[in-house]
Amino acid sequence: MDIDRIKDYLWNNRQRFLDELTQFLRFPSISAQQAHDKDTLACAKWIKDRLAALGLKARLADDSSQPVVLAVAEGRSGRQVAIYGHYDVQPVDPLDQWHTMPFEPVIKDGMIFARGVSDDKGQLYAHVMAVEAILRTGGRLPSTVVFLLEGQEESGGDHLARFLQSDKDIRPEAVMVSDSSMYDQQTPALTYGLRGIVAMELIVKALAKDVHSGTYGGAVANPAIVLSWLLSRCLGPDGRIQIPGIYDDVLPLADWERENIRKLAFDDQGLITQLGAKGLFGEPRYSMLERMWARPTFEINGLISGYTGQGAKTIIPAEACAKISMRLVPDQRPERVQALVRDYLERVCPNTVDLQIHHLHASGPILFDIQHPMMRKAADALRIGFGRQPVFIRCGGSIPVVEQFVQKWQCPVLLMGFGQDSDGAHSPNEHFSIQSLFNGALASAALLLSL
Amino acid sequence: MDIDRIKDYLWNNRQRFLDELTQFLRFPSISAQQAHDKDTLACAKWIKDRLAALGLKARLADDSSQPVVLAVAEGRSGRQVAIYGHYDVQPVDPLDQWHTMPFEPVIKDGMIFARGVSDDKGQLYAHVMAVEAILRTGGRLPSTVVFLLEGQEESGGDHLARFLQSDKDIRPEAVMVSDSSMYDQQTPALTYGLRGIVAMELIVKALAKDVHSGTYGGAVANPAIVLSWLLSRCLGPDGRIQIPGIYDDVLPLADWERENIRKLAFDDQGLITQLGAKGLFGEPRYSMLERMWARPTFEINGLISGYTGQGAKTIIPAEACAKISMRLVPDQRPERVQALVRDYLERVCPNTVDLQIHHLHASGPILFDIQHPMMRKAADALRIGFGRQPVFIRCGGSIPVVEQFVQKWQCPVLLMGFGQDSDGAHSPNEHFSIQSLFNGALASAALLLSL
Repeated sequence: MDIDRIKDYLWNNRQRFLDELTQFLRFPSISAQQAHDKDTLACAKWIKDRLAALGLKARLADDSSQPVVLAVAEGRSGRQVAIYGHYDVQPVDPLDQWHTMPFEPVIKDGMIFARGVSDDKGQLYAHVMAVEAILRTGGRLPSTVVFLLEGQEESGGDHLARFLQSDKDIRPEAVMVSDSSMYDQQTPALTYGLRGIVAMELIVKALAKDVHSGTYGGAVANPAIVLSWLLSRCLGPDGRIQIPGIYDDVLPLADWERENIRKLAFDDQGLITQLGAKGLFGEPRYSMLERMWARPTFEINGLISGYTGQGAKTIIPAEACAKISMRLVPDQRPERVQALVRDYLERVCPNTVDLQIHHLHASGPILFDIQHPMMRKAADALRIGFGRQPVFIRCGGSIPVVEQFVQKWQCPVLLMGFGQDSDGAHSPNEHFSIQSLFNGALASAALLLSL
Repeated sequence: MDIDRIKDYLWNNRQRFLDELTQFLRFPSISAQQAHDKDTLACAKWIKDRLAALGLKARLADDSSQPVVLAVAEGRSGRQVAIYGHYDVQPVDPLDQWHTMPFEPVIKDGMIFARGVSDDKGQLYAHVMAVEAILRTGGRLPSTVVFLLEGQEESGGDHLARFLQSDKDIRPEAVMVSDSSMYDQQTPALTYGLRGIVAMELIVKALAKDVHSGTYGGAVANPAIVLSWLLSRCLGPDGRIQIPGIYDDVLPLADWERENIRKLAFDDQGLITQLGAKGLFGEPRYSMLERMWARPTFEINGLISGYTGQGAKTIIPAEACAKISMRLVPDQRPERVQALVRDYLERVCPNTVDLQIHHLHASGPILFDIQHPMMRKAADALRIGFGRQPVFIRCGGSIPVVEQFVQKWQCPVLLMGFGQDSDGAHSPNEHFSIQSLFNGALASAALLLSL
């Protein structure tokens, strides 16, 4: 049986695969930080060369520092399947909370620790291993496989979007994406829904410069206080977003979804422990999974104003800034949500300050039909790879590119995540299970052979 | 006449005095930052040596990095007068808003630009010049003059307090302090009231580490949002502090004060222009001077949480921090205000997060009787030094040590500021008028000769 040969091949090349992934992880490919542009480009070249060495036609699709990497393995039929991943990673701060250096991968307790190992270099690499295993065990790919790897997933750049706009050669019948989580350590999952996002920056300017809080305190607006007024009026203590109209387009969960969520029997207490939280907090009358999968959110991602060093500095700051983001669910549209937020904040902001609202990035929410034949094949492949029946889940996160794929190709996107929510994506001490890496590679190979 | 000889002496030594002050300003004596401990100590030694060279008995009163500097010039009588000042300075950030380097003094348009030149090195130096002018023009001091210079004014340290607790030799009948402002460019002022202060740090902790805002958004408390709730509940959009009981002990202005404030005819529009503010903001039914001098405030001095770099990072931060301070007026007591703030915040803080409240520093408000003979002598001296009748004003800022002097010696503290509110104390591009430096020195000499 093909799949046994592939399993053996993966096992026999285990150490080399780990060594290669380690090389991949050493690039600090932080796309949000220009200072790392060279590293990001070097990372793109490395994965391109890796795929070329397998015999794929590989190239950088643009000449930026964060290029799209394209690699094609011809199949027997004229049919195509695409594999999407991203080689860029999140920033690393707070660095002092890492137990090992983020770009010096360490293996411990069956886990690889490094920034980007789960999100998304390790998951992406499972597919590279799968294609290698098929090609090197004498197999031939039924469908042509197109790797489409981007370097701006974490920064919301538009290189991939522009590539997709102009490209006419790629026409996949499905896109495989591994950039999300399994349901738990043992249970693989096919993700049929994603939340969207709008990310913005609010800047409240009150003064030409910082001034003495004694001399002028009481006579001029404090921009940090005005910012706190604005932010406190966006999310209420009851967990409800207070921006008028924000819930208008929210699609209620289908009956089968509520039943599915009930069966999944999510462990609330386990989440509290995992996050080191004092308690859970969210919209009343919704379960935890409903809150994380199917309800919109308002979050502050960052705050800065005035003096933040050691000791005290008695100033009224000139300005205050918040980075905020909202997760969107079907059928909310990013443009409408942005307009609602902007209108609301401009309306409630006092005229004693200037309010600037900068758009950072956005993408829409996604829902797939779990009855689609491609979704069924993906579920079968996950069962083969992980030795367990997968569950159908949604994901609270956003993979903006999925929306672009759907718009361009009208095909299903197979969100087969190999990670865990507890992997620490976007957090210190990000890690990824070696077992999942190899199970994921096997699942990918099984799916590629079935298409 | 003595005072003419002193005027001539100051004028004839003009350039040397400026050169010496420049040396004094070059020390980055930022007491709030441990990294500058060496600079702060070097600055203390420099001013001690400067006073010793004049023939004063000068010494460092403790062996810390921010020592009290003590220097005594014997007078004809057994009576004593003290001169207080501080040689430490505020931090310099935001450094990118300085037009010249903060510790490389530059003279332009009759002003000296440097961190600490107005607050308080330049003002302090006027008194050094005054004592030198008296001694070097053959005069003899009627009262013994005790310089008491501290290095922790900007950081709220306790070295001076500890010195005052143990010292038994100093028994001044008045303390001269120049660490505040004239009423305007031409009009000298004697400050008879100061606001007090309590400075605190609030830390809201929600999670063990930053987590992905997509995966977990909607299910756990965002500490930056909780912080915005807390802060927005401290000061209302109407400019009133919302902490229950906070106004209980506030003393209304006396009738003569309201009349005095009316006569001072403060220029509201001028303040807007000076601060680059979009408008003024404050408690209704109080004039600008009343808000800045005689009403308590709630200010945010700094905010920090999560990701504040370039671009976006979609996290829920583990914690959020605010540095806050409140200005107090007679008869508010710092201890009571701290307790009210703590009780209120702990009561309104949701139990989904941990709230830590750290005390940073505090001092009480002050009011002097403007009819006291020493106050009258100080007013006369200001008239001589600046060639204009001084006005009586309050100051919105806090000089914590004044409270300590009053408690220790029960004597008036003569707050004769030579600076301007527009000098940019605690702000970028701090500066001080050379004319005020020399007028201040003359006023100081006139006062010292009258005591």
